[in-house]
This record gives sequence, structure tokens and C-alpha cells, in this order.
Amino acid sequence: MKQLSDIAVVGLAVMGENLILNMASKGFTVTAFNRSYDKVERFLEGRAKGLTIRGADSIQALVESLEKPRKIMLMVKSGQPVDDFISRLTPYLDKGDIIIDGGNSQFEDSNRRTAELSKLGLHYIGTGVSGGEEGALLGPSIMPGGDEKAWPSVKPIFQAISAKVEDEQGELTAPCCDWVGDGGSGHFVKMVHNGIEYGDMQLICEAYLLMRDLLGMEADEIKTVFDEWNKTELSSYLTEITADIFGYKENGEALVEKILDTAGQKGTGKWTGVTALHLGVPLTLIGEAVFARCLSAIKEERVDASKVLSGPKAEFKGDKQAFLNNLKDALLASKIVSYAQGFALMREAAKEYQWKLNYGAIALMWRGGCIIRSVFLDNIKTAFDKDSELRNLLLDDYFSDVVTSAQQGWREVIAAAIVNGISVPCLSSALTYFDGYRTADLPANLLQAQRDYFGAHTYERKDKARGEFFHTNWTGRGGDTSSTTYDV
Amino acid sequence: MKQLSDIAVVGLAVMGENLILNMASKGFTVTAFNRSYDKVERFLEGRAKGLTIRGADSIQALVESLEKPRKIMLMVKSGQPVDDFISRLTPYLDKGDIIIDGGNSQFEDSNRRTAELSKLGLHYIGTGVSGGEEGALLGPSIMPGGDEKAWPSVKPIFQAISAKVEDEQGELTAPCCDWVGDGGSGHFVKMVHNGIEYGDMQLICEAYLLMRDLLGMEADEIKTVFDEWNKTELSSYLTEITADIFGYKENGEALVEKILDTAGQKGTGKWTGVTALHLGVPLTLIGEAVFARCLSAIKEERVDASKVLSGPKAEFKGDKQAFLNNLKDALLASKIVSYAQGFALMREAAKEYQWKLNYGAIALMWRGGCIIRSVFLDNIKTAFDKDSELRNLLLDDYFSDVVTSAQQGWREVIAAAIVNGISVPCLSSALTYFDGYRTADLPANLLQAQRDYFGAHTYERKDKARGEFFHTNWTGRGGDTSSTTYDV
Repeated sequence: MKQLSDIAVVGLAVMGENLILNMASKGFTVTAFNRSYDKVERFLEGRAKGLTIRGADSIQALVESLEKPRKIMLMVKSGQPVDDFISRLTPYLDKGDIIIDGGNSQFEDSNRRTAELSKLGLHYIGTGVSGGEEGALLGPSIMPGGDEKAWPSVKPIFQAISAKVEDEQGELTAPCCDWVGDGGSGHFVKMVHNGIEYGDMQLICEAYLLMRDLLGMEADEIKTVFDEWNKTELSSYLTEITADIFGYKENGEALVEKILDTAGQKGTGKWTGVTALHLGVPLTLIGEAVFARCLSAIKEERVDASKVLSGPKAEFKGDKQAFLNNLKDALLASKIVSYAQGFALMREAAKEYQWKLNYGAIALMWRGGCIIRSVFLDNIKTAFDKDSELRNLLLDDYFSDVVTSAQQGWREVIAAAIVNGISVPCLSSALTYFDGYRTADLPANLLQAQRDYFGAHTYERKDKARGEFFHTNWTGRGGDTSSTTYDV
Repeated sequence: MKQLSDIAVVGLAVMGENLILNMASKGFTVTAFNRSYDKVERFLEGRAKGLTIRGADSIQALVESLEKPRKIMLMVKSGQPVDDFISRLTPYLDKGDIIIDGGNSQFEDSNRRTAELSKLGLHYIGTGVSGGEEGALLGPSIMPGGDEKAWPSVKPIFQAISAKVEDEQGELTAPCCDWVGDGGSGHFVKMVHNGIEYGDMQLICEAYLLMRDLLGMEADEIKTVFDEWNKTELSSYLTEITADIFGYKENGEALVEKILDTAGQKGTGKWTGVTALHLGVPLTLIGEAVFARCLSAIKEERVDASKVLSGPKAEFKGDKQAFLNNLKDALLASKIVSYAQGFALMREAAKEYQWKLNYGAIALMWRGGCIIRSVFLDNIKTAFDKDSELRNLLLDDYFSDVVTSAQQGWREVIAAAIVNGISVPCLSSALTYFDGYRTADLPANLLQAQRDYFGAHTYERKDKARGEFFHTNWTGRGGDTSSTTYDV
């Protein structure tokens, strides 16, 4: 083992441990640190035994074990624990040292920390790490942002441990890790990734619900469908594990059917929705996906409600295989909408926070290693390679063709769900977004008239230039006082 | 005019002026204050002339003009201006004086200000005031919360100026104003009111869109429909003004058709969505309504998209009157869902912030004066009078009957919209919520299996007690390290 470590990792929960093992497997020497040293000892005697991994029993020992510029990666709970550890750490560091936060921090915190540490002469990187337990061990997707001066030192380690996908020559060498941008942009992109993950998972669940409750399919049949879909444009990690899950038996019965239908959430999907509301970007599908988890959580209330609120008896007539083909189209089209919304959110954030984001590179970072990895992301990369300023994925030739030709099946599936009383909030909100987005004249003219009627909020006109505002005294009553802003 | 004023109002934009005129009309003497005194002078010489309204040209003059305990109502822009004015004001006040914030403040700010001013011996009220320009003048809905010790002094003024609805004897004496609860609960309830307003407006817009783009109806016909609906359970202020709007002509043509379809937002609807995400309450309809405004705002992009993304040609076959009846059912059922979600949000907030909220009283406060006033709110009041602990409006006998019998028309309308490519995000998200809420077994079992598969997040089982968590090693690979929390 080298005398000094290349990097330290703080926090020995599953993600931290697996990242360390991943780094060691790529030839790096790593210092492991944890709040309680016994956890370090157990790790060194267990999974880390015989590898280029050393422990540190104090912050000082941790810092002294590192080559300069020191690189210390925090895999601790986001929020206050990160700030706390940074405060404990900074007195021991030298100018040019690098602190990396690999947890699920909020991007505003990473914006702030990058600026704060820069004042101390330290470099901060806030990085998204996705891929779960297995990804961390074998190759995660890594999305670093922050202080770009730190990137050259960190890049060799991160790109070595990240997942790899095929490069243009078909070799498995393209790392799913690249520099995202300034400040909190790395954590922002990770947040959007997580929101998209919420959406993808819920879409698959809605497809499952239709197979189960409308088509009356059993787990084995469902497994076969997902296996088939995994050979198409829907090929993805989540499609693949869904097939695995439907194939997993406990005493001869599908385990998934025994699992309680109450989804938890770590809150990262929620933050995507909150951010979209703040930035004014219609992120309807992910919003519905988060709310679907909330609805799943009130299981007892739903069970009670199911006894009070009756609906139509689900009854499928028609050709099952044709419906499954339509369902595949519905899933694909909805997924395209979800990614279109997510990339639109990143575009708006880039404007708001003055980040330069390379959307094609982001698609490539998600191409492997992470939960939402899929062949589908190649097409997104291609779309942004063709037009880096693309306003919306739906406007790209490839995606507009796919969605346009998928739409008939998509509409039929949702209409069937609606008529049969089967809840598909994400599949249907994707379609209402698609139809709204392609509507030149929405009914918001009425909404503006209402706002002007009751609040003198004024409106613009179709037959006048933008930026000219009109008010009508709709009732002939009321005063002439102008409105909208309160004024002291 | 009395030597000392009963109350002062700070901020002479339309809401402030009209509240002052309303107070004076009820026999109160009011001091008017504004950042720039010339606005006060113009008001005194104009609309306030000859009424029991005086001006003040300094904070000291303002304070000295008031009877004790002094009551000073701020109608200023929310946020920093409120804190700034409070800071300027407090040095002149005595213990027991009352500051009232009647703007659109965030409830967290009102929580904080109530506590801060209480330490100074001052009483704070954060109150929602709804009804727009005309409501402020003739009788708004008022939703005060904060420091209950201030309520007896303020109550006579607020209940005098508020809207009145019929009491149990059919007399127009029941004030649309009552004490809401502690801290920021008044502003919370106003926030939910505003969110519901977003939902109601968007639902009406979607009904209009179907009439225009599917049924091919002209403004005059649409006016007739809303006039008819205003004689039914849909009777409401918004239904009424919508009929007015479709009847308003400019040079013989409906003005509404000339108005640009880009909706603005003051952000209060957005905050309802953000709060719902934080509290984990599925508030899907209002969320979609906020996003629908965001989508309307990108008019140029939609116009471009309409040229790229084609859809089905809308074509109505069938009986128009039957469809309109179904549309009425769809609107009513969706509205019930929206209010059910809004009241569920208030219930969760009451738990979170330990407020005691009287939901029936809140329905009564909204019954008159405000933008969402409707006969419909009587039924909500009745539902909570019957069961103050009602978990969800949809579980009330009356509402479950209405929704259950409306659902066939509701489903037909949405299916028609879906098939014809007409975007109805709120009507359809209401239905997917309804169907989800009444589903005992949602597909979140798959979602939990996925989370356990890639992140070892564990799951509960249908055949075991709640609170018992299981993990499966789905692949046979990976370590035994347990997951979910990072640990320093």
C-alpha cells in the first residue's frame, strides 16, 4: 500500500463502503473514516481486508494520511451533518485541498458551500452519485459540479470508478462521469435524475397495474412482457429488474405480490417538483409520480375508501397482444415526455443560475451506472449533439416521430384506463402535457379575462404586440384604481 | 369624525383603499397611510372625500391617530416590505397593540412574526383577505390567524366589513370571517384558498376548451351554458363571471377571444403545491393547474410545437346536449376532488403545526366574498358539521353519492378529450386521483420491490404486521451491508 492515500471517504454506510472498494479495485489507495471507529475496524477486518484501504481514527490522522492536494469525499447524511463535518475538517486543511460531497445534498447548499470554501482557498465539489449499492461497487454514474479548479485532480479517480458505456468505436471505455458545471449544478442534475427515476418507476407501475387489473395477467406473464420490452427501445435497467422481480418466487409464489403497496420516499423526487414549481417549468409527470407515492402511503385510508367509493368493473374486450403493444407505445411516449420535462427544467435552471450545461454529456452520464440507465439516453445524447440549444426534446426529429407514431396506442390505453377505473396518473399526465404543449391556443385567454375581471390584473391581446397590457371594466362597476401590486 | 381612529390601514393600492372605504361605510374611523404621502392626499381628496377617513404623513402621526389598543393593518407587498414596516412601526407601539398583515404572506413568515412580536408584548394577526377589488370594497372573505388575544378587538371590525351569507334562519347575517387558529394558520388557509382558486379556474378553462375545440361552440352558446350551470350545484362566482365574460362584446365580437392565452401567476398557487409536496399530501389537481399556467406562458414555443407535433383531428360525434351534461358532471366531480385534496392538505398541516382548525367554519368563510364562493361550500360545511374529523370529503355521504353518480359522464368526457387530443390536465388528474384513492391495492408493491432491489430499502409485507421490514437479495449478488441512511 502506498504511504499516502489518494483519497479519503468519510461515512461507512453501504454507499461509502462500496465506493471505497470500487476505488481500491481500480488501484487507488483510500483512507476510510467513520464517526465511530469500530465501524472502520470492522470494515478493515472484513470486506476491506487485504486491499489498499487504511483507516483513520481521528480527523488529524485522516488528513495526514492523504497526498496533496488532499481529496476528502463525504458520504454522510445530507444537510447539517455535511456542514458540521466541513467545519471539523477545514482547520486541518491547506489551500488547494478538495472537499467532495457525494451525498444527496440540495443544490442550493452546494451553491453556498462552493462559495464559502472558495473564500478559504479550498475547492468544493458537490457530486451526484447514482446507482445504488451495486452501482457504487461496480461503477456508478457520477455527476460532479462546483469549483472547476478541483476537477483535474479528481477526474482520474472519478472516471476510473464510474460506469463505462460504449464509445464511438464500440469499446466499453466512455465514462459515465464528466464535469457538469459551476456551483450546485452537479447536485441539481442528480436531483433531476432522481425525479426522472420517480417518474420511470411510476410509469412501470402503471403498466403493471393495467396488466394485472385490466388484462388479468399473472406474474409469469408479466415477467415475459418486461423481458420482451427489454429487447426494444424500452431496454433499461428498470425494465430489466422489473422482469427479474416478477420472476422471483417465494415458495412457488411471486414475492412481489406479497409486498405491501406503500412506497417510501427519500425526498429527492419531491425537491425536483418543488424546484419546478419555483422555476415555473411544467414538470407534471414527476409531480404526479411523487404524489402517487404519497397516495400509496395512506394504505388504510385507501382500503376504507375502496369500500365507500365504487367504480366501473374493469373488463377487457379486444386483443390482448394489441393492447400490450399499445401499452408499450404508451410507456415509451410517456417516458419521452418525462425526459423532455426534466431537460426543460435543467435548461431553465441553467438560465436562472447561469450554469453552462452540456445536455448531451448529461445524457451520457446517465447512460450507464445509474438507476435510469437505458439505451433511450443515446437518442437524447444524439438530439443534443445535433442541436445543443434544443428547447424541448419533443421538438427533435427522432422523438417527435416516435411520439407522433406512438400516440394512437397511447390514447387508446389511457382511454381504456379511464373508462375502466384504473388509475394511471403519470401515463395520462404525460399525454395531457403533450396535447397542451402542441396546442397553439390554450384556454388561458379565459383565465386572463377572469383575473382581469376580479382583480384588474390586465391582459395582453392576440391582435396587439406582446408587452402591451389592457384592462376592461367588465361589470361597469368598481373604481379606477389600478391593481396587482401592493404599494406602501 | 371621531378624534381617534378605530384602525389604520397602510398601503393604498386597490386592496388597501377599498378596505378603508368598506370600513368607513360600516361606521369605523380609519387612518390611511402610504409610503408616499401624495397618494394619501389624492385619496383623501378623491374617493375618501367626506368619509370618516383621515391621513397620516408619518409613522408617529399614524400611531398617535389611533385608539388603544392600536390596530394597524398592513396591505403591503408580502415578504421583506412587511418585516421592514414592522421594524419601523414597533418603536412607536405600546404593549397590547395589534399589527395585522392582510397581504399574501407566506404562512411560515406569519408563524415567525407572531412569535417574534409576542416577545415584544405585541399581538400579531396574519389574515387572508380574498375577494379582489370588488370584494375588498363590498365585503371580502377574511381568514385571520395568529395571536388569539388580539381577536376580540379586531373581530367587530372584520366581521362588520366581511361578506355575509345566510344564517340558519335565512337572514343575510353570517359573516364570512371567523378566527382560524394559531400562528400562520390564517395565511395557510388563504394559501389553500388561492390554490383551490387556481384549480377552479383551470377546470372552467378546460370545460371551455372542450366546448370550443371539440363541440365547436361560439361565445354566445358558451355563455348560455355557463348561465345554465350557474343555476345548478355549480352555482358560483367564477361560473357567473365566466358567463359574463363570454357575453362581453367589443365591436360585436367576444372580447375573450382576443385575449392572449398566457396566464400570469402571483405565486400563491405555487406555494400550495410546494407545501403539499413538503407535507406529502397528494394535491394533484392544483399542482396540474399551476403547471398549466406555466405551460400557457410559453406561447411562442407552443405555437412552434403545434407545427411540429401533430395529433388527431378533433371530431365530435354524438349528442351535444348529452355531452354538455356529462361535462357538467365532470366539472362538478373534479371540483369535489380538488376541494377534497385541499381540505386533506389543511388536515395534514394542522397535524404538523398543531393547529386546531374548524373545517366547517373555513368552508363558511369561503362561502361569500371571495373568488371561490359557491353554494357548493354549504355542502362542505354540512359534511364537517356532521363529522369534524372527516378524513376526506370524498368519504362524506353527500359527496360520495355525487361523485359516484357523476363518474360515468366524467369518464366519457375525459376519454373523448384523450382520443381527440384536447388537453384537460385537471379534469383528468382529478379522475386518476379518485381512482387511485379508491384502489385498495395500488401497484406500489412493485415500486417497493424495485427500491429494495437496487437500494436495499426494505419493504413491508401484506401478510405481516405493519412496521416489520424485509429485505431480499434479489440477484444473489452484492454484500450484506444494510442501507438507506448514510452514517458518519
